[in-house]
Amino acid sequence: MSSALVSIICGSRSDLATVERGAALLTELAVAHEMRIISAHRAPALLDRYVSAATERGVRVFVCAAGLAAHLAGAVAARTAWPVIGLPMPGGSGGVGGGLDALLSTVQMPPGVPVATVGLGNARNAALLAAQILAISDPALAERIRALRAGQTRAVEDDPLNEGA
Amino acid sequence: MSSALVSIICGSRSDLATVERGAALLTELAVAHEMRIISAHRAPALLDRYVSAATERGVRVFVCAAGLAAHLAGAVAARTAWPVIGLPMPGGSGGVGGGLDALLSTVQMPPGVPVATVGLGNARNAALLAAQILAISDPALAERIRALRAGQTRAVEDDPLNEGA
Amino acid sequence: MSSALVSIICGSRSDLATVERGAALLTELAVAHEMRIISAHRAPALLDRYVSAATERGVRVFVCAAGLAAHLAGAVAARTAWPVIGLPMPGGSGGVGGGLDALLSTVQMPPGVPVATVGLGNARNAALLAAQILAISDPALAERIRALRAGQTRAVEDDPLNEGA
Amino acid sequence: MSSALVSIICGSRSDLATVERGAALLTELAVAHEMRIISAHRAPALLDRYVSAATERGVRVFVCAAGLAAHLAGAVAARTAWPVIGLPMPGGSGGVGGGLDALLSTVQMPPGVPVATVGLGNARNAALLAAQILAISDPALAERIRALRAGQTRAVEDDPLNEGA
Amino acid sequence: MSSALVSIICGSRSDLATVERGAALLTELAVAHEMRIISAHRAPALLDRYVSAATERGVRVFVCAAGLAAHLAGAVAARTAWPVIGLPMPGGSGGVGGGLDALLSTVQMPPGVPVATVGLGNARNAALLAAQILAISDPALAERIRALRAGQTRAVEDDPLNEGA
Amino acid sequence: MSSALVSIICGSRSDLATVERGAALLTELAVAHEMRIISAHRAPALLDRYVSAATERGVRVFVCAAGLAAHLAGAVAARTAWPVIGLPMPGGSGGVGGGLDALLSTVQMPPGVPVATVGLGNARNAALLAAQILAISDPALAERIRALRAGQTRAVEDDPLNEGA
Amino acid sequence: MSSALVSIICGSRSDLATVERGAALLTELAVAHEMRIISAHRAPALLDRYVSAATERGVRVFVCAAGLAAHLAGAVAARTAWPVIGLPMPGGSGGVGGGLDALLSTVQMPPGVPVATVGLGNARNAALLAAQILAISDPALAERIRALRAGQTRAVEDDPLNEGA
Amino acid sequence: MSSALVSIICGSRSDLATVERGAALLTELAVAHEMRIISAHRAPALLDRYVSAATERGVRVFVCAAGLAAHLAGAVAARTAWPVIGLPMPGGSGGVGGGLDALLSTVQMPPGVPVATVGLGNARNAALLAAQILAISDPALAERIRALRAGQTRAVEDDPLNEGA
Repeated sequence: MSSALVSIICGSRSDLATVERGAALLTELAVAHEMRIISAHRAPALLDRYVSAATERGVRVFVCAAGLAAHLAGAVAARTAWPVIGLPMPGGSGGVGGGLDALLSTVQMPPGVPVATVGLGNARNAALLAAQILAISDPALAERIRALRAGQTRAVEDDPLNEGA
Repeated sequence: MSSALVSIICGSRSDLATVERGAALLTELAVAHEMRIISAHRAPALLDRYVSAATERGVRVFVCAAGLAAHLAGAVAARTAWPVIGLPMPGGSGGVGGGLDALLSTVQMPPGVPVATVGLGNARNAALLAAQILAISDPALAERIRALRAGQTRAVEDDPLNEGA
Repeated sequence: MSSALVSIICGSRSDLATVERGAALLTELAVAHEMRIISAHRAPALLDRYVSAATERGVRVFVCAAGLAAHLAGAVAARTAWPVIGLPMPGGSGGVGGGLDALLSTVQMPPGVPVATVGLGNARNAALLAAQILAISDPALAERIRALRAGQTRAVEDDPLNEGA
Repeated sequence: MSSALVSIICGSRSDLATVERGAALLTELAVAHEMRIISAHRAPALLDRYVSAATERGVRVFVCAAGLAAHLAGAVAARTAWPVIGLPMPGGSGGVGGGLDALLSTVQMPPGVPVATVGLGNARNAALLAAQILAISDPALAERIRALRAGQTRAVEDDPLNEGA
Repeated sequence: MSSALVSIICGSRSDLATVERGAALLTELAVAHEMRIISAHRAPALLDRYVSAATERGVRVFVCAAGLAAHLAGAVAARTAWPVIGLPMPGGSGGVGGGLDALLSTVQMPPGVPVATVGLGNARNAALLAAQILAISDPALAERIRALRAGQTRAVEDDPLNEGA
Repeated sequence: MSSALVSIICGSRSDLATVERGAALLTELAVAHEMRIISAHRAPALLDRYVSAATERGVRVFVCAAGLAAHLAGAVAARTAWPVIGLPMPGGSGGVGGGLDALLSTVQMPPGVPVATVGLGNARNAALLAAQILAISDPALAERIRALRAGQTRAVEDDPLNEGA
Repeated sequence: MSSALVSIICGSRSDLATVERGAALLTELAVAHEMRIISAHRAPALLDRYVSAATERGVRVFVCAAGLAAHLAGAVAARTAWPVIGLPMPGGSGGVGGGLDALLSTVQMPPGVPVATVGLGNARNAALLAAQILAISDPALAERIRALRAGQTRAVEDDPLNEGA
Repeated sequence: MSSALVSIICGSRSDLATVERGAALLTELAVAHEMRIISAHRAPALLDRYVSAATERGVRVFVCAAGLAAHLAGAVAARTAWPVIGLPMPGGSGGVGGGLDALLSTVQMPPGVPVATVGLGNARNAALLAAQILAISDPALAERIRALRAGQTRAVEDDPLNEGA
């Protein structure tokens, strides 16, 4: 089996159900990936070691899902120069404005350390963005993504309401 | 001269000064790029033609800067399967919450059409993210980015206040 | 049967139940209309073709319902000079501030391409506004709207609590 | 001289400079209009009389500009069944979130009394929307709007940066 | 029976359950009051007539409960110089930020036409404020309010957790 | 000279310039008032003594101006059962959302301890509301307020733009 | 039994269930503590007496939990120079933005009277912070906290998904 | 000279002017402290080493000032069990809502890793809180803080406006 190119890290086990929708898309697109649950705040040394080891093994894109004061993506971006995708999670009853805290904590990075942020809880977009990035140097993957996108378009065109549109 | 790999599109001429800071970083990193000013709302057909032509010529990453109801990045992402980076612009006197309108309009894309969003007006991060993406298949560029990042780190370490830290 | 004057477009099937309350009002006011489900992001070419064809067939007002980074109304407004009504949808668990993302993405259009925005999820107002616009050149419709409005007023006046008010 | 079809009402004299940019566009498009400064809160009876008289004289679209707890557009919409366009004004030092108060006070109308809201301080869009509405029954005006829109598009296409785009 | 001194107006029947908690407090404090359901937008003329008639009959304080673009309190304040208390209602699924729209629409009145705004959905405080205002010229009512307040304080002091505090 | 009926308290000297606009209106309306600068946080015991003493001397309405985590009005309301008017101040560079922090800290009081909140920095409305409250038992003051309000209305009617409106 | 070093005060009985999670952590860390329910608004004199008495008895850190216009922590901070921890509570149906009102009312204190604010409803962090503060002069407690923190880290490391990470 | 008990870390040189106001207060209170400029994102390894070394040398409280997606305080809190005070900085033109991004990124920490957050840009409160924490085991410092607080109170009492209050 090929080594993982994408690493998906959750800040907490409670993010897992959402994030697995992204992992499923990577599987569908045949992008090798691995998943971990590492809090940037509760296990910073583990995160440090993991980012190094994963990069060493060939990971080229990180997807980081976290809520509240979501530092995970930024912490990873501080430790690697490969692209890091931030997936802010809506925070439930202790969050502010439906996840605005996680969104701002993820996207508003200082100059020099970017995080590629996608919409709140949108694990599918995080995974698809990872695949699009890898597709630049993988024509077969690019083709699979184009097919997926074409399928999305066809689903709209085939909606019964759109007949003859 | 090599053909552009990154296209930077501004929604309006007023975004140009900010965006040029990103272009300067791409030049510094020797990433071939081109710049356009195309409003998704005032010139949608031109945008359509341009995205096709640019892709055809070899552009692999789009950086889209826009303010207010910032649709530019989403409109480009709807027309290409290559990575699109959204750069929301603070809106000035007609904006809401210091650019919250542009940020939400850029990042909250529906499943299936991601936009990789960076912080408000952070053109440097948009450009660096584009370079990081291309560096996956360009070891020399990856090296230049690592050098840039190391320089950022050294600048902190060398701050007079940090002597002996 | 007369050709549609109003087109109602949803960005996603999940908006349909809300939007149908607007369609019902148009039926009640005898305004010919048609409905489509076309994502500006997943099927941009279809949207392009549809706006042209609908205009050609006689549509004079578009009502566009979308959530999150709601670009649908703006995308239609970029392709027609007839009035476009934007109906921002509350976003559910992935939305921000109860739909603030959709509201700002719809209303904050750049100069030169207006979208007539109504309240969050207020399909009745979107439909009534469309009818009011058409009523300027349709005295019989203007009369039906006045009757509807008078009925609304009477319902308040007839509230048991208001007896003798 | 023809009678006004569009009435522009400001809630306060301080809105006048912004609103005059909209009036200038109506003049450019040869749409007969008139302007008033009537606070819904300080002169409600005058507003009442004015809306009746203006409608009587032939006004078919109202544009209402107000800031803070911006009730002007809603107050006019409560008194006429012709289309009312709301132009929320950024509130200066006593406003909240750069005008979020005026935006929400204008757009979030109850079912049955719509206000067609445009972006914060965007007088040009308020005026253009009024013209688009009237153009449905005025083919010459529709032609002038199409020319204006085409000019906007050409201005983008002719930007020096876009040569050969 | 004595004539009403306080009038409680709801913008919609859906506000009634909340508002009745305020009415119950007025009854408890023996403040004569009456209740109406009058939308400022759907029945502006009725509101106009009612405010005049109520003032004529002796009403001295108005409590106005409304949600969304809550204009009711402002509309009443524009028509009377007696104190008007605004009670913004949380807006449910079509509201923004849990009722921020209603709060800003109620409190941000222009200079010269104040509305005394209380917290979101806090009918008890609206009613108590009305009573406090009337108590300035009604020593017996002032006494009853002091007793009520003392009771509130005692309830805290008597909490089992506070024994010996 | 008559004893003060209204007490205006600022939380900080920086609020004084704004608040004096309210004091000027009370002078114009011949409402006896006094002014203090007492921080609820830096001088709680002084505030405690002052509220008692002022009430003893005949103060019947308190106007409390404060910014940031504006507790002043609430602290006074906790210590008197006479009406307390809260005047939230826009917070300058350390405030959030143009004063949203002060507004929410002032208006969102718990049941049983109301604060009558006016708009951000709107000292004129705070003062006018105080006068309206006192006017219930002072017919001559009520007459002066009506004259003031009529003057406001006439100023609108006499605007040159409104000639013949 | 040793005297309490930490006092936990709730503004209302409805905060108790949340706050008890913090008390449990203090028990686990063997930090002597006591709990009270005292509203700063409904029982200000009791709060005054309690803060004095508690300080007298040896309390060195206060944890104050309150929602809405959450003044409790600030009121305590105004009355003691020992550290005060503010725990803003999400406000339920009458709150704004999921508790933004409580957060801003707690954290935005004026210079000279700090409140150490933790995240919304995060009673565990409020309690842990209190313990960390006391641990500076209590090496055994510092050791227990380090063990707790190490346990948190180990729980992450031992997650089945992280095997071999 | 005694070794530093408080470490003040800025995320960027632009925060220095604000933060020095806090350092000045520590000097006034004779609390030994040191200052560094270390970005958590640009120099994570340096931050790691510094937190260990500082703790080793005797630092017991960290004050961390950062703007935008302010991770600094959280990153330090992840690496030490001594109290960490977060000082969110208003973000200037690229910030959201006047610093709401920095505030939420600092305060909304996950359970188990608290950050004691003070108001936006309020360096004086950050420093005073650090001193209050250390004062628990330093009676002389506690005395100096009480004197400072008493001075604050006296300044209010001595305000010319408060004569005889």
